[in-house]
Amino acid sequence: MPTVLGVHETILYATDVDATVRFYADVLGLVVMEESVGGVGRGLRLPGGAVLLIFNPELAGKPGRVVPSHGATGPGHIAFAITPDSYDAWLARLQVRGVEIEKEIEWPGPEGDRARSIYFRDPAGNSAELMSGDYWKHVEAERDSARG
Amino acid sequence: MPTVLGVHETILYATDVDATVRFYADVLGLVVMEESVGGVGRGLRLPGGAVLLIFNPELAGKPGRVVPSHGATGPGHIAFAITPDSYDAWLARLQVRGVEIEKEIEWPGPEGDRARSIYFRDPAGNSAELMSGDYWKHVEAERDSARG
Repeated sequence: MPTVLGVHETILYATDVDATVRFYADVLGLVVMEESVGGVGRGLRLPGGAVLLIFNPELAGKPGRVVPSHGATGPGHIAFAITPDSYDAWLARLQVRGVEIEKEIEWPGPEGDRARSIYFRDPAGNSAELMSGDYWKHVEAERDSARG
Repeated sequence: MPTVLGVHETILYATDVDATVRFYADVLGLVVMEESVGGVGRGLRLPGGAVLLIFNPELAGKPGRVVPSHGATGPGHIAFAITPDSYDAWLARLQVRGVEIEKEIEWPGPEGDRARSIYFRDPAGNSAELMSGDYWKHVEAERDSARG
């Protein structure tokens, strides 16, 4: 059976594409790829090689595009991985940029290896998260332990 | 300035979470992480370390959760990276599993290095894509060339 290598494109929707693209470029340092993707949005490159698309849901959802149509409304979500020792620098950077921290969470896990998350909203209202460490590996360990 | 390492969590919404999780596990071979994430959805682990969340938008969108609320309706999108030499095996696998191919695209690029995409829908109607190669690097090359 063939395997996927990982996520190549993830998407967030925004009525004001430019404002949201600018936010991820300015605040998170993502690199804007081009002015327009098919007239419906723009893309940003992430370290590691994946691409974050910001599309206008009304335009991307129109039938008859070259690519299959899609477009969701309401707040979406994305989490970015950060290193544990950059956590405080990220808090400071968000503060300097005037980005309101909606929540911080320290996730369950063994002491010294607990993931931590910083949550904030992009201009479109999507819930963005910066996670240091990997909470999910503890979830997987519990699953595997329960299975014996 | 701190940098993000990449995407850690990407999300798709589905009213029938279980059917959509089963689809990504059965058809794409992603590994289901646990039975429930906060009672609003489930997660799958991808090769490379990222996590795909499948959440019920109505439940995940309720205010007052431990984590910030989010939940979008309408078809979303995700693209998975695959190797060029697995492309035909993926077409065959989708066919065997009875998954309808909505579209195939060969993207612009130099001969021998053109990305190709296979599009299909998950049970919730989200547009899923398997991309061999990286179309976006050609877009970036054009951007950089235009900037001189």
